[in-house]
Amino acid sequence: MANSDSGAMHGAALSAPRIAVDAMGGDFGPSVVVPGAVEAARARNIRLVLVGDSARIGAELDAIDASGLAVEVVHTSQVAEMTDKPTDVVRRKKDSSIVVANRLVKDGGADGVVSAGHTGATLACGVFILGRQPGVDRPALASIMPTEKLPIILADVGANLDAKAFNLFQFAVMADALARSVLGYERPRIGLLSIGEEEGKGTREVLEAYQMLRGSSLNFVGNVEGRDIFKGDTDIVICDGFVGNVCLKLSEGLAGSMARLLKRELTSGLLSKVGTMLSMGALRRFRQVIDYAEYGGAPLLGLTHISIVCHGSSNAKAIKNAVIMAADYAAGNATEAIASTLSRNSDLTRFTRGKAANCNGA
Amino acid sequence: MANSDSGAMHGAALSAPRIAVDAMGGDFGPSVVVPGAVEAARARNIRLVLVGDSARIGAELDAIDASGLAVEVVHTSQVAEMTDKPTDVVRRKKDSSIVVANRLVKDGGADGVVSAGHTGATLACGVFILGRQPGVDRPALASIMPTEKLPIILADVGANLDAKAFNLFQFAVMADALARSVLGYERPRIGLLSIGEEEGKGTREVLEAYQMLRGSSLNFVGNVEGRDIFKGDTDIVICDGFVGNVCLKLSEGLAGSMARLLKRELTSGLLSKVGTMLSMGALRRFRQVIDYAEYGGAPLLGLTHISIVCHGSSNAKAIKNAVIMAADYAAGNATEAIASTLSRNSDLTRFTRGKAANCNGA
Repeated sequence: MANSDSGAMHGAALSAPRIAVDAMGGDFGPSVVVPGAVEAARARNIRLVLVGDSARIGAELDAIDASGLAVEVVHTSQVAEMTDKPTDVVRRKKDSSIVVANRLVKDGGADGVVSAGHTGATLACGVFILGRQPGVDRPALASIMPTEKLPIILADVGANLDAKAFNLFQFAVMADALARSVLGYERPRIGLLSIGEEEGKGTREVLEAYQMLRGSSLNFVGNVEGRDIFKGDTDIVICDGFVGNVCLKLSEGLAGSMARLLKRELTSGLLSKVGTMLSMGALRRFRQVIDYAEYGGAPLLGLTHISIVCHGSSNAKAIKNAVIMAADYAAGNATEAIASTLSRNSDLTRFTRGKAANCNGA
Repeated sequence: MANSDSGAMHGAALSAPRIAVDAMGGDFGPSVVVPGAVEAARARNIRLVLVGDSARIGAELDAIDASGLAVEVVHTSQVAEMTDKPTDVVRRKKDSSIVVANRLVKDGGADGVVSAGHTGATLACGVFILGRQPGVDRPALASIMPTEKLPIILADVGANLDAKAFNLFQFAVMADALARSVLGYERPRIGLLSIGEEEGKGTREVLEAYQMLRGSSLNFVGNVEGRDIFKGDTDIVICDGFVGNVCLKLSEGLAGSMARLLKRELTSGLLSKVGTMLSMGALRRFRQVIDYAEYGGAPLLGLTHISIVCHGSSNAKAIKNAVIMAADYAAGNATEAIASTLSRNSDLTRFTRGKAANCNGA
């Protein structure tokens, strides 16, 4: 299927998590993905499998110092283009970097996969190559977002454009397991995103999901509004993928706009300039908190293996943090935690699935 | 129906816009609404009709200096509670401040109405008392939002939890007229909020609305993403009321969180403190740009008269700016502009309405 340059394999302990990275992904391909992944391997005990055009990957590896690190290269001849339909990538581009990286994980050659860009193809690979965990109807893309307090999980942020009440409920179950196993939150507070805090506010799907969540063993705190997300008083915020995707991108856009605006205001006068120089450290810390690259990528929840999706526009720092995230999730047994939470809730899950199907008259 | 204390009427010219204000609305009632409205009358040539408990309104007027201003008080005996169902307010609380304020406008006693809180009741009063403009299927709540460049219009931000493609198209037509008549934008650039810029990205409603907008005479620039909203490169962003409401509140919440975070960082060291003092003016300007109170309220588009909805949590400054907005819209003939744009697009509107109905298999 693909050539393995296992001669490059050395460095990290054999017990270290092995992460497959789609080196051709993202807006910048190997020039950003390779340095980012290598930085992760240098920072942590991680074994890398870089999947893609071996000549281009090799050139990037030559340009940086990867000596002493456990870096393996798997050559592939195809690349998934943004214009490709997700299912076409899985069916017709069998030697594309994203497909091969996912197959590696499925076949036990890696503990998790990281890819940037083409979320649709990554999701298709997740469902059709890795496979869904038992009981999962639809996987969800979860984003770890900074807040005024601790980071929170927002899900779904783009895997499902619409979601039935039953799906929203499952997103909550999966995010709960993630928050416990990886973020270390003991009893995550779960909020349902709506347009008012009152029980009766929201679309039909939101109203139904509210009842399911209230009847579950989860720590459901009720509806939350857009303004509550960044307060950090809720550990998990649940919504459909259209709303979540808009929220995620709006937050990034607004944070960027505010940083630019602030810089413009702070540099518009002499006194301000002096003030800015003196406040530099504070501004740097401020930017760090709002910098999404710190959080790297978004895990796809509900798959049998770990899959982390990065922005197409990811820089090396974002890739680095996504690879570390994949390794942490492997070490934290995030997939097993989700499976066990799902199985503990299987009665409710079956019940609510039937109920949701009935409600929709399907 | 109500007692009119017209003896208090003096000040502004008879040609000045007359704005009815629901003095009992919002989280704080007359204590915030009355001073805010009076500030508007002091700043501009506006005649006020304050509707609500005349004793409480009188006490507030006594406490501030309203001399020389055109302030009329209309007494009402009932108040719409947040727990009241919107249609119940219209049907059963006929002497509530919000119903009487809307009736005043309908009967020609005022040129527009401003109310804070209970968006549902305001919408119900708009539809059942003021009435929809010919051809309008569903009114939309439009928010004027600050951006890095000029302010933009986001619609709908909460009048419709879901919207058919046809409704999204009409929101665009109405927002276009508003942007021309009130913001003075010559050929407003209209974007459709989705999860990707490509034509094929989005829910079924978004895909259908895309085609309608592309086939119209509007200056449609295609899909925009959450991150584009605050760039200010699009003058109007169209979405359904659930998504828009979440966006609006998320923006407010994030802006507030960032301001608090920045303050915390800037005051955490001695050098930073000195820097902050020197940068004070810049920070003040920064806060002003992100302060939603500057923009006051959100107009309900598609009604026969002007109706401005304010946050329940509005402060006096927000009420002041909402009253000024209502007066400006009356002076700018915003309602007439929408009627004329709708009538110019009536062929397309009829066509798309039929098409939308067919598409939904209704």
